[in-house]
Amino acid sequence: MKQYFTLLLFSILILNSVNAQSPIIGFTEDSGNEQQKLEKEFEEKLEASNIDNWIQKMSAEPHWVGTKFGEENAKWIRDQFKSWGYDAKIETYHILFPYPTERVLELTGPTTYKAKLTAVPVEGDPFTAQGDALLPSYNAFSKDGDVEAELVFVNYGIPKDYEKLEKLGISVKGKIVIAKYQGSWRGIKPKLAAENGAIGCIIYSDPQDDGYGRGDVYPEGAFKNKTGVQRGSVMDMPTYPGDVLTPGYGATKEAKRLDREDAPTITKIPVLPISYEDAQPLLAALAGPVAPQSWRGGLPITYHIGPGPAKVHLKLKFDWKLVPAHNVIATMRGTDFPDQWVMRGNHHDAWVHGANDPVSGMVALMEEARAVGELAKNGKKPKRTLVYCAWDAEEPGLIGSTEWVEDHKKELQEKVVAYINTDGNGRGFLGAGGSHSLQAMVSEVAGAVTDPQTKVSVKERRIARDLVNGGNDSFELYALGSGSDYTPFIQHAGIAALNLRFGGENSGGEYHTIYDTYPHYKRFKDPEFAYGVALANTAGRITLRLANADIIPLNFSQWHTTVSGYLDEVMKETEKMRTSVEKHNMLIEKNAYELASDPTKKYNNPKPKEKVPYLDFSPLQNALSNLEMTIEKFNKLDFRTLSKDKKLFINKKLMEAEHMLTSEEGLPRRPWFKHQIYAPGFYTGYGVKTLPGVREAIEQKNWDEAKEQIDILSQTLSNFNVHLKGIISRIE
Amino acid sequence: MKQYFTLLLFSILILNSVNAQSPIIGFTEDSGNEQQKLEKEFEEKLEASNIDNWIQKMSAEPHWVGTKFGEENAKWIRDQFKSWGYDAKIETYHILFPYPTERVLELTGPTTYKAKLTAVPVEGDPFTAQGDALLPSYNAFSKDGDVEAELVFVNYGIPKDYEKLEKLGISVKGKIVIAKYQGSWRGIKPKLAAENGAIGCIIYSDPQDDGYGRGDVYPEGAFKNKTGVQRGSVMDMPTYPGDVLTPGYGATKEAKRLDREDAPTITKIPVLPISYEDAQPLLAALAGPVAPQSWRGGLPITYHIGPGPAKVHLKLKFDWKLVPAHNVIATMRGTDFPDQWVMRGNHHDAWVHGANDPVSGMVALMEEARAVGELAKNGKKPKRTLVYCAWDAEEPGLIGSTEWVEDHKKELQEKVVAYINTDGNGRGFLGAGGSHSLQAMVSEVAGAVTDPQTKVSVKERRIARDLVNGGNDSFELYALGSGSDYTPFIQHAGIAALNLRFGGENSGGEYHTIYDTYPHYKRFKDPEFAYGVALANTAGRITLRLANADIIPLNFSQWHTTVSGYLDEVMKETEKMRTSVEKHNMLIEKNAYELASDPTKKYNNPKPKEKVPYLDFSPLQNALSNLEMTIEKFNKLDFRTLSKDKKLFINKKLMEAEHMLTSEEGLPRRPWFKHQIYAPGFYTGYGVKTLPGVREAIEQKNWDEAKEQIDILSQTLSNFNVHLKGIISRIE
Repeated sequence: MKQYFTLLLFSILILNSVNAQSPIIGFTEDSGNEQQKLEKEFEEKLEASNIDNWIQKMSAEPHWVGTKFGEENAKWIRDQFKSWGYDAKIETYHILFPYPTERVLELTGPTTYKAKLTAVPVEGDPFTAQGDALLPSYNAFSKDGDVEAELVFVNYGIPKDYEKLEKLGISVKGKIVIAKYQGSWRGIKPKLAAENGAIGCIIYSDPQDDGYGRGDVYPEGAFKNKTGVQRGSVMDMPTYPGDVLTPGYGATKEAKRLDREDAPTITKIPVLPISYEDAQPLLAALAGPVAPQSWRGGLPITYHIGPGPAKVHLKLKFDWKLVPAHNVIATMRGTDFPDQWVMRGNHHDAWVHGANDPVSGMVALMEEARAVGELAKNGKKPKRTLVYCAWDAEEPGLIGSTEWVEDHKKELQEKVVAYINTDGNGRGFLGAGGSHSLQAMVSEVAGAVTDPQTKVSVKERRIARDLVNGGNDSFELYALGSGSDYTPFIQHAGIAALNLRFGGENSGGEYHTIYDTYPHYKRFKDPEFAYGVALANTAGRITLRLANADIIPLNFSQWHTTVSGYLDEVMKETEKMRTSVEKHNMLIEKNAYELASDPTKKYNNPKPKEKVPYLDFSPLQNALSNLEMTIEKFNKLDFRTLSKDKKLFINKKLMEAEHMLTSEEGLPRRPWFKHQIYAPGFYTGYGVKTLPGVREAIEQKNWDEAKEQIDILSQTLSNFNVHLKGIISRIE
Repeated sequence: MKQYFTLLLFSILILNSVNAQSPIIGFTEDSGNEQQKLEKEFEEKLEASNIDNWIQKMSAEPHWVGTKFGEENAKWIRDQFKSWGYDAKIETYHILFPYPTERVLELTGPTTYKAKLTAVPVEGDPFTAQGDALLPSYNAFSKDGDVEAELVFVNYGIPKDYEKLEKLGISVKGKIVIAKYQGSWRGIKPKLAAENGAIGCIIYSDPQDDGYGRGDVYPEGAFKNKTGVQRGSVMDMPTYPGDVLTPGYGATKEAKRLDREDAPTITKIPVLPISYEDAQPLLAALAGPVAPQSWRGGLPITYHIGPGPAKVHLKLKFDWKLVPAHNVIATMRGTDFPDQWVMRGNHHDAWVHGANDPVSGMVALMEEARAVGELAKNGKKPKRTLVYCAWDAEEPGLIGSTEWVEDHKKELQEKVVAYINTDGNGRGFLGAGGSHSLQAMVSEVAGAVTDPQTKVSVKERRIARDLVNGGNDSFELYALGSGSDYTPFIQHAGIAALNLRFGGENSGGEYHTIYDTYPHYKRFKDPEFAYGVALANTAGRITLRLANADIIPLNFSQWHTTVSGYLDEVMKETEKMRTSVEKHNMLIEKNAYELASDPTKKYNNPKPKEKVPYLDFSPLQNALSNLEMTIEKFNKLDFRTLSKDKKLFINKKLMEAEHMLTSEEGLPRRPWFKHQIYAPGFYTGYGVKTLPGVREAIEQKNWDEAKEQIDILSQTLSNFNVHLKGIISRIE
């Protein structure tokens, strides 16, 4: 009894021991104060003028993968890092990259129109007048094709749009579809179109989404003028990202490669992006039913679905060749734990000039690295090794980072504490996503960084916005889907990752167009480059904390709360699906759909749906409940008095924690994706699906798979539990 | 004990006695069967070809109040009624009606544009080419004016839009506002603009709302082409409708009239409606903040709010004169209860041709009356007196009906069982609003009328649509606000009323334009005139049931459920308001609004709001609870075996029931509106506010008034309770 009381008292006193009496998680009182001083010193070295100058330098010319200017940028980055005291090198992979050699899109009936496929130069922005040096607008990893068919407007071309089309009795089989950009990652549109039998796909930017419907257009304002076209990859990244010919291993010179015909991530049909100027005559030539209200965009026409009478001819040819992708890898060896790496990365390739995407993020990373280098020169070297990366070939499909991670996977899984990604930046609010075990630490850092405009912390400002928008007053990380170079780290290698960016007050329509230039960036994104400094400050502090922490600063309570929330969500979604199916079948039973429909309009009476079975979620509930108890115990541990060996052991174990959340077999039908908590959605692309194995099985109504995935996920959670228990048993 | 058991058994057996063992409410088994036979016979006499022919005849020329063609229509209607055996006459009032003599709208800076203010004739519709015979587009009861000022875009110009403008730090004081049609009744827009200090108001039809954004435009489709303009009254009808110079009494020749300058329902500022072709240059010339997303319409421009630099000149002059409004009143004397009147009405005046509004409803009423006349000629006269009305001057402000009701108010309150209104008609679903004591009867009738397209009952089809849209499977009446001629009956005189119309599959943009013509109607509204027949059938059956019922078919249980629902709503809204104010004040306390706003944009930091007090709703809850018990007792009465005298007494009392729901002092600041359950909203116009005294006091945060109104409403409900108890005590 007495012992129990003492223990209880003890645990109340020390609370969360990682944090006990320390100003910051992962540090003791002394080391924490030291660290905060260091970060202050780091912050003071950051210069907005470097960010300004370097954006100008790096975005002076187009620099997609394989270009001369891209290679020059890589070499310049490497040399900069060297000059700051890093061990820097270029690691090159040889990847398949298509360059468009023929692009024809024409309306062939009932009227004719030949798409211009060219964005115009604008006054005040000489970069937009570089003519042939600009990469023609296209979707990388569209297959070659020459097709002619009737056109069908499919809204955003996402699953629920095809459900609607089916209700309306409209098939895209043998047709060419035209879809609006947005609503999903672009690669989903040709993927679904092909699955539904279409033979070609056009994607256009509707003015409602990022043109005059949002704000004044370039050059008057930041939004897309009628000629702007968003480029972008349509590679099937939810299956696997990276080089299409070398799935799961590095695209080294000598690597064995798939035949291009066998590459599963090249689209099944040709696909081309166009401007709203080019889209309007095509859409205006459609007849058939008026599109549902939510489908209609901002063009001054009545949106019809078709099919036809509009008929279009689409011809695309690409020069498919291997090009070198140059990753810059810069290392600063840690003083105490050289084999524990904290990694930072941003890509350096752009579709055109990429002043915002990626250069504004790249230069913030560089300014951060420069300041860290200065600290090191003054004897304040990091305890763990820092690895700064500038990735090539992110735009065509996260290729540079993916090949590098695949190539170095074993070493990375052993050594990397966490990977911190950035990818462009703007003015506004801190957006932060990533592994939820890092949430507490990121929240502390966000509380330490001052917002350049309001002078409160970036955390306080973010929370203020969340509150105004109806959110709560805690700082939370969003879950990572895909869309940037964190993907191979977290989702393939199981390495804890973060993604950081400021934004929300810098919207525009320049993304992946010829208008993403320095003049546009300076006017509309971050005029003072103050948020470039804020990003360097935030990411740099996170990097330095991870590098110097006594105990790697993970908090599993917040992780547990978040993951339990995901399970609740999945269970509620299943219930909702059940109710909705029951209602649907009731409405069919009563013939209500048919009675409610307009008899003068074509309409497919819906079919009854299979009942949603009750699933046994208890294995997951039990696993999370067991984990909760373990995590409570873990939080009561006092790490301060431990021997160096025990600390080493614990940190090693903590570095492995994220990997415990993966399963080696990966997700169904896409084994490359191994993380069991976060994945890009198979039918959303960038958009995350949490608890993806279970959630997507349910969404796809594959009940057997749902049961299997519940078992696999509970096993993963149990392994994670055993892992944490292993730490506890060694300490207690 | 024994007695109690017997009583219980008895009441279970007879259930709702009005309905006991009868096929239809208000009838015995025998009389009910007889009535259903009669209705069948009535239905068989209805002819679509009459509806077709009469629409053509009545909409051949424009016929707003005061026109020669309008007077001819009235005389023709009267003569038709006479030929069908009715005692028909024209009752004429002399009302103020403004005709536009000068309309100038021009953009005077920074560019110039002169608004055309003229809709173009279209191919295939000769009626649109009648040139000067067409009434120029204008808003009736705008004051004269000649103003020039900077322009401000105010979205729909409704209260929440002005709240938003205040947050954005934009004032309309001394400016001219431009508002989109829709979002409220049009008269609210100049009223609020003036209250906020604007000196002029322009209203335009955005293509998103009823132009190309909804569907193909006329003549290709039913929607508004770029030249179409919606006319309409902007008289302050929520204060009082009817002749602006004779509030509360009939505008007879010799009536005392207000000076026009003193007429409170003429607008305070000049107001003009325009087309989207005319609106575009004005809107495009605005600068200032980009309009919030929900404000933006379908024009191919970026919507800015202003003020300015767009500057506009608006000049309006009207010929204000008294014109005759000719109401047609046709009576068929009841055989048994000649002093109990069942009234039917539809207006006959139109803004232009009005094929849909009002003629399609008017001719359905006539076809109904013709068939009833035939029955009468065959000896099947109604037991109660039928009064069919064709109102004039509805369009400028429900003037014909209002003057007539005001003029005959006392007699009507004594004699009228119910007033059944229609006002145009189309293809689709039965829409029915009105006094909820009539809901059960209307539901029965809707179950007896066959939908022309699907061959199920119109009730079943309506419920199918409600179910598909997420509603429940009961047939419910909506609550009446304003917008047609039922208003003086229910809201001023306290007479039970209904409003009926088919629609939902006949949308278009012709409302109050020169395109509301026979060719448009025939193509897009009700091509076979089958719904004209359905409307005649529905309204006719209701009329005949009310005319022949043994006991007037009111059901107070459904009324009680509905009104209790309104009280729940008001209480929940108050709670929501409290939570929202608390949240608002918390956000100010935390400075969250300011931190969440973009520091580069102008922004008025919101002020704290007064706390929402807890209100004592218990008097209303108690009154409704007492009523519930009374209604339960009432439902157990067996009317079948009563003497003729007692039946007469009960019917007299039932006729008074709706009037018990009014209070003679009327609503605060608008004593003309006396109904305590339903009123048009003071700031919504047509949109209903249920429990208006209490609800609007709360919405306006006038807590003292809210308490007063709770007392007044509970007193009204208690009086109603006493009234019902009076019936019970006479029967038991």
